[in-house]
Amino acid sequence: MIRTDISNVFPFVSKENVEALSAELKAAHEALEAGTGAGSDFLGWLRLPENYDREEFARIKKAAEKIKSDSQALVVIGIGGSYLGARAAIEFLKSPNYNLKKKNTPDIFFAGNNISAAATEEIVELIGDRDFSINVISKSGTTTEPAIAFRIFKALIEKKYGKEGAKGRIYATTDAAKGALKNLATVEGYETFVVPDNIGGRFSVLSAVGLLPMAAAGIDIDAVMQGAYSAMAEFSEKSFANPVWQYAAARNALYRAGKTTEILACYEPAFRFMAEWWKQLYGESEGKDGKGIFPASCDFTADLHSMGQYIQEGMRNIFETVVKMEHPNGNVTIEATEENVDGLNYIAGRDLHYVNEQARRGVALAHVDGGVPNILVTMDKLDEHNYGELVYFFELACGISGYTLGVNPFNQPGVEAYKKNMFALLGKPGYEELGAELAKRL
Amino acid sequence: MIRTDISNVFPFVSKENVEALSAELKAAHEALEAGTGAGSDFLGWLRLPENYDREEFARIKKAAEKIKSDSQALVVIGIGGSYLGARAAIEFLKSPNYNLKKKNTPDIFFAGNNISAAATEEIVELIGDRDFSINVISKSGTTTEPAIAFRIFKALIEKKYGKEGAKGRIYATTDAAKGALKNLATVEGYETFVVPDNIGGRFSVLSAVGLLPMAAAGIDIDAVMQGAYSAMAEFSEKSFANPVWQYAAARNALYRAGKTTEILACYEPAFRFMAEWWKQLYGESEGKDGKGIFPASCDFTADLHSMGQYIQEGMRNIFETVVKMEHPNGNVTIEATEENVDGLNYIAGRDLHYVNEQARRGVALAHVDGGVPNILVTMDKLDEHNYGELVYFFELACGISGYTLGVNPFNQPGVEAYKKNMFALLGKPGYEELGAELAKRL
Repeated sequence: MIRTDISNVFPFVSKENVEALSAELKAAHEALEAGTGAGSDFLGWLRLPENYDREEFARIKKAAEKIKSDSQALVVIGIGGSYLGARAAIEFLKSPNYNLKKKNTPDIFFAGNNISAAATEEIVELIGDRDFSINVISKSGTTTEPAIAFRIFKALIEKKYGKEGAKGRIYATTDAAKGALKNLATVEGYETFVVPDNIGGRFSVLSAVGLLPMAAAGIDIDAVMQGAYSAMAEFSEKSFANPVWQYAAARNALYRAGKTTEILACYEPAFRFMAEWWKQLYGESEGKDGKGIFPASCDFTADLHSMGQYIQEGMRNIFETVVKMEHPNGNVTIEATEENVDGLNYIAGRDLHYVNEQARRGVALAHVDGGVPNILVTMDKLDEHNYGELVYFFELACGISGYTLGVNPFNQPGVEAYKKNMFALLGKPGYEELGAELAKRL
Repeated sequence: MIRTDISNVFPFVSKENVEALSAELKAAHEALEAGTGAGSDFLGWLRLPENYDREEFARIKKAAEKIKSDSQALVVIGIGGSYLGARAAIEFLKSPNYNLKKKNTPDIFFAGNNISAAATEEIVELIGDRDFSINVISKSGTTTEPAIAFRIFKALIEKKYGKEGAKGRIYATTDAAKGALKNLATVEGYETFVVPDNIGGRFSVLSAVGLLPMAAAGIDIDAVMQGAYSAMAEFSEKSFANPVWQYAAARNALYRAGKTTEILACYEPAFRFMAEWWKQLYGESEGKDGKGIFPASCDFTADLHSMGQYIQEGMRNIFETVVKMEHPNGNVTIEATEENVDGLNYIAGRDLHYVNEQARRGVALAHVDGGVPNILVTMDKLDEHNYGELVYFFELACGISGYTLGVNPFNQPGVEAYKKNMFALLGKPGYEELGAELAKRL
């Protein structure tokens, strides 16, 4: 089970002061469970691991089997929470090089998360003449980026298979009842999956939003849900022995002590997009009302040779959270060489995990000595079950942490500001007044 | 030529106050050129675009041709400045999906930038039984991560081609005269290229360090150097009309006004690793003595749906720098549809560049309105020449900015701290005392 070690926080905020947050954490945790806090319409993720829709879950697995059987590529169209979770899971559980690998599952291409012509064209090129399917993920069906991408890839797939043939290759993950995409899916007869009303995008990875792409990539989503369920059971404990409380308490105590930037790091490169998923989860939940910890990420040991200098000696408003695997994948032993030109023979016979772990331990001490608190989150190994645990750990800690910070962790009012401006500048009907205003400013 | 627009800084720091930094910028710029500032032993990058070694440059191109002719894969072993620059250039100029694309140049795999067994094994798996070469990049030859990787891939290539055959496939970019790798290369007869003494890793991308992998990937390195040369000529101007001055002034003025985190963003996903390269350049140059702007990055518009909320409404200690291409790659027009279910017909007939640019403009205004200053760096298009300009722009601005901040931008004393601890924990001879000390703490 996921555990937390916050001992390297205590040189900066005393154990007593961190644990003194217990009353606030308890109130936050209870408000979440009782649904009495801000944003309580969006708490569907909290009990999701036990009360998810089994019928839909079975359809997800069936759809994934069909995609695996009839497609060499799957285009996953979505942005934000409809993109990052699935990409993170596939990179973490399969590989950042998933598409390069020999496998009996389709390549996965993520489209609709940008407005880049080059990136869009390239996906078309990479699919080539291979068989493909589309999973379009959008609650409304009108979010600009995925809507544009869906126009393009829908035209492509209909050209290839005909309108009839295409219908069996388009999977829409969208609102259960309303919205442009839901309506289209009904008219066209696409198979649909649900973006639940009571789960915000950044908390949706364990819904159909994340699960269908994961299953298509060959990830055991039963094990994912079992892991999340274990975590849900384990982390319901209302005491400071709960690793979720420890993480939420440590980061809130550090924030109050002026450590306002958190770097999430891992010593396995496959974690890179898990950190991107985490950045949305925490940044979007906490970054409001002029407050919130700024979420950043590093890829260690690589970034010890880039961001390492700053972390060691730059502004002292940062802290680190490191995700560690007790038993990582892979098995590489360092061989002795006769000449020992690189001087590495002192670690000959060691495996890379051992060396990597000594790096992690050495870094933690060096950074603490340099004034950077260090939180350690340990998972047992890199598999579906542990991934499910980790997701639930971070989601629950985020909810508790957000309430402790005093914000509504389940809304995102600031995301609309740029969209309005963009619509106005694009001349969208209804935005004429704002358009005139912006034209004057530009 | 690269240009800068800092008008969206003035709502936060007045034009007068930004321009008042001119005297400091001038002093910094002159100290760089005269070599009278801190770290002046590491100014080789400043005139590199005109005085690089033409003989070596020709050998780089020849080596790249040989690699292209006899290898389907090239393993580039290096970390920090011996990794990020080349990866960034290949992703930016070729594609983040470079290895997935059909091409007549070898796949490029970056090894030795982590201590992950899984990541290392995977490269071996992805090479498979294909022909490959190695470019090992290390000034000393003893940096732990690349040294471990080189042991592994040297054994692999010697097993495949025999010791003799392997020699013609290993290219060592290292010190000109001394060090473990240089000595080995001399004994074995590897072709060698030089990591210059007077250029730090993070400024080394336009030396053999970056150029050989780039050339092997089919990048026109002549055009890169010409672009850098143009920038060198253009940006030598000592006035506030110089875009380099404007960037350096704006960020220093913002830093002094409490905007201590800079987010580098681009609306083209291919830029992701350019931002990683930039983070090393600025973070390692400025993050010392308890100061320095914290460098972060975003990938827009994707991250407007993740970090966007924080940027719009979180803590107000951030500013943004956006890199824009006037003429991006790709050509995608949004087609009208009869049903217009997604409501996008109001932009039918528009190309994606137009839409992407309106997003950028709308975001800039929204973020400024939300309290986030916005610096705009514009390049004409995405090609080798413009890339060379951009690299030189950021390098020169970094030197000037660092002096203006009052640090030595060319050292990295903090990077050693974790290494010492790691050596001690690994039991490296000579670190016994520190090892005993750390054992007590752990």
